[in-house]
Amino acid sequence: VANLNSTRITDVTITPVAFRDPPLLNAVGVHEPFALRSIIEVHTTDGVVGLGESYGDAGHLDRLRRVGGALSGIDPFATYEMLGVTQRTLGGVVGADRHGLTGSINAAGTVLRTFAAFEVAALDIQGKLLGRPVSDLLGGAVRTTVPFSAYLFYKWAAHPGEEPDPYGEALDPEGIVQQATWMLETYGFRSLKLKGGVFAPPAEIEAILALRAAFPDAPLRLDPNTAWSVDTSIMVGNTLAGILEYLEDPTPGQLGMAEVAREVPMPLATNMCVVGFDDIPEAVRLQSVGVILSDHHYWGGLGKVHDLASICDTFGLGLSMHSNSHLGISLAAMTHVAAATPNLTYALDTHWPWKSEDVLTTPFVFHDGSLEVSHEPGLGVELDPDALAHLHEQYQRCGLIERSDTRYMQSIDLSFDAKLPRW
Amino acid sequence: VANLNSTRITDVTITPVAFRDPPLLNAVGVHEPFALRSIIEVHTTDGVVGLGESYGDAGHLDRLRRVGGALSGIDPFATYEMLGVTQRTLGGVVGADRHGLTGSINAAGTVLRTFAAFEVAALDIQGKLLGRPVSDLLGGAVRTTVPFSAYLFYKWAAHPGEEPDPYGEALDPEGIVQQATWMLETYGFRSLKLKGGVFAPPAEIEAILALRAAFPDAPLRLDPNTAWSVDTSIMVGNTLAGILEYLEDPTPGQLGMAEVAREVPMPLATNMCVVGFDDIPEAVRLQSVGVILSDHHYWGGLGKVHDLASICDTFGLGLSMHSNSHLGISLAAMTHVAAATPNLTYALDTHWPWKSEDVLTTPFVFHDGSLEVSHEPGLGVELDPDALAHLHEQYQRCGLIERSDTRYMQSIDLSFDAKLPRW
Repeated sequence: VANLNSTRITDVTITPVAFRDPPLLNAVGVHEPFALRSIIEVHTTDGVVGLGESYGDAGHLDRLRRVGGALSGIDPFATYEMLGVTQRTLGGVVGADRHGLTGSINAAGTVLRTFAAFEVAALDIQGKLLGRPVSDLLGGAVRTTVPFSAYLFYKWAAHPGEEPDPYGEALDPEGIVQQATWMLETYGFRSLKLKGGVFAPPAEIEAILALRAAFPDAPLRLDPNTAWSVDTSIMVGNTLAGILEYLEDPTPGQLGMAEVAREVPMPLATNMCVVGFDDIPEAVRLQSVGVILSDHHYWGGLGKVHDLASICDTFGLGLSMHSNSHLGISLAAMTHVAAATPNLTYALDTHWPWKSEDVLTTPFVFHDGSLEVSHEPGLGVELDPDALAHLHEQYQRCGLIERSDTRYMQSIDLSFDAKLPRW
Repeated sequence: VANLNSTRITDVTITPVAFRDPPLLNAVGVHEPFALRSIIEVHTTDGVVGLGESYGDAGHLDRLRRVGGALSGIDPFATYEMLGVTQRTLGGVVGADRHGLTGSINAAGTVLRTFAAFEVAALDIQGKLLGRPVSDLLGGAVRTTVPFSAYLFYKWAAHPGEEPDPYGEALDPEGIVQQATWMLETYGFRSLKLKGGVFAPPAEIEAILALRAAFPDAPLRLDPNTAWSVDTSIMVGNTLAGILEYLEDPTPGQLGMAEVAREVPMPLATNMCVVGFDDIPEAVRLQSVGVILSDHHYWGGLGKVHDLASICDTFGLGLSMHSNSHLGISLAAMTHVAAATPNLTYALDTHWPWKSEDVLTTPFVFHDGSLEVSHEPGLGVELDPDALAHLHEQYQRCGLIERSDTRYMQSIDLSFDAKLPRW
């Protein structure tokens, strides 16, 4: 038995990357031509390298670099110490922040979303040192495969000025059913999520009814990203009674969600009004949500997803998983933690089908909408240096440094107003 | 890097032991001449043996044996699977149960207190295989030493019919201060807990005031094990305002505790009305307690103590640690999990000073009331086969198979009535 206590982090490499992203529509705009991510490599004294992946926005990159620079000399098993270093390093600079569609972020949230990237890399290191998959470090997989959900989007045929992308246009129920058909044929997903908040509620109700008709057995979710008033949410919820497995973030704020929750038959899910541990006491008190979407990127890593899971289990809340546009390192991390979280019983969200590029040597393959849980040490994925270099170059070339679906939409449609709720 | 995925549990040895215990008084009676424990050895395919320690009562021993027999073939990293096996094995036999002074136990609690012993042993195996202390498997120690609290008891000079024990009599404030003086001189504890509920409240208030006078800087706790009515609890709480760091289980039930909590200035702590995850939603709703006492033996192992810690952190509850009479394997486990739980900021309870026997090769040594966190692989303790054999023999000889402080007290004092609350 080797004594591994001497392993220490030597340095951290953070590489911003950009990958092609189709024009996917949501309540606050449309996906830009490139999605930004950061690839984290944590090096150790014994040559093992741990991988992490996170957001790629400029402010976040700056925080990752500051914290990464402060991790030298730390034992990769000392994740609490890493969290402490993250807190101290960011202590002076974090404040109210906002990120995409995941609600307002307070200082604690900014610390956790910075720490998360390094925690995943630390678990990858631990697993590699120990010859164990990351799921084994989290109590062991309770399922051999992890099911994901098809993530359907209204979309244009192409980014303005570009050739049509291979995914096709989807701006009505027919287009959404066609998209779902393609996605289910390609990946085998068993459940379907529609990103709503794009068209007026009747059109989106129609799309859900069309999906129900085309796929009678698939659990269905609808996520308008708080595009609706309380009354509209109640109307849609009751119209889709017995059809949706859950309704995600119909309306802003916990008070509004609680009002809707009392009047509709399905559970409400959220990745917008309960996005940090600080939000949970109010959620319990108000009974504002029935399902919390975990996401290790902002909840604070895989260990914190476990903490969230135990809270959901204790308070009778459902647990699902949220996804932003991401690459394979994140997909591996999501799969490991989901495999080792007994009460994560909903199929996970993933933007995976919408991207054609990655930074890994071996692509993931879905069977029946699920991924097999890797038995390889650590996350079980390998970085492809050429692919990383290519996507980094693409990052430098594309000129984007911060995601803004709204700004991009307004560059196309001057009249677009991102104010929510809209209906 | 070795591939350790092939390690499997082969068999489990469970040895009941008894060790000498002084006549310590509490609200339901007096400690019997022997305390019962079980020593768990989990054997694996590669010869590594994991250690656990648990209660020694007959019913619990039976459950440990049934579950232990069902663990063969399981990967010691698969603790969720071990929990599942525990649930399935006990599924048909667990029901309402009661154990000592830790409240009523439902089926979920019985599963968790059975599982806990094996989870600790599994973590010991993992650490030994990996060359890492158990604290490293829990996120890494955030403190190098773990502080414990002096655990003061009213006591007789001797068990009836025996020679006086070395600890001496303590039946009044003077005796308690003398006991505290001895314990602080010997162990260096910085905080003090008095087990109350033995004498009428004015006498115990007097004892606390005497401790405050003798040790002006030591945080003080008083635990009458629900011996008081709500009104009495409020009276005592207000009398000891500014003197107690917390008041533990003054009165039975969450409703009564909530009433007391509203009227007294110090936090209420509990190991009686919140003893499982099922109790937590009510605790949050009623604000019945301010501090929850973790104890891996009944919360379900070290991972579940972490779950509890994250819940306490999220809901603004304090976290401390409870102790029954225990041996060194449990002390090692308590130290590891406390070291790796940032918000476990109270000194831990331990009955340690009250026992003179153990099953380990190397005794623990306290400095300033604290234990250093071991850097050795696993729990960092080694079983002494001769000592184990001796305490097992003592178990067989002593004739006790189930703890009952009340039955023992009534064998001495026919008029003793264990009904609580008493005052």
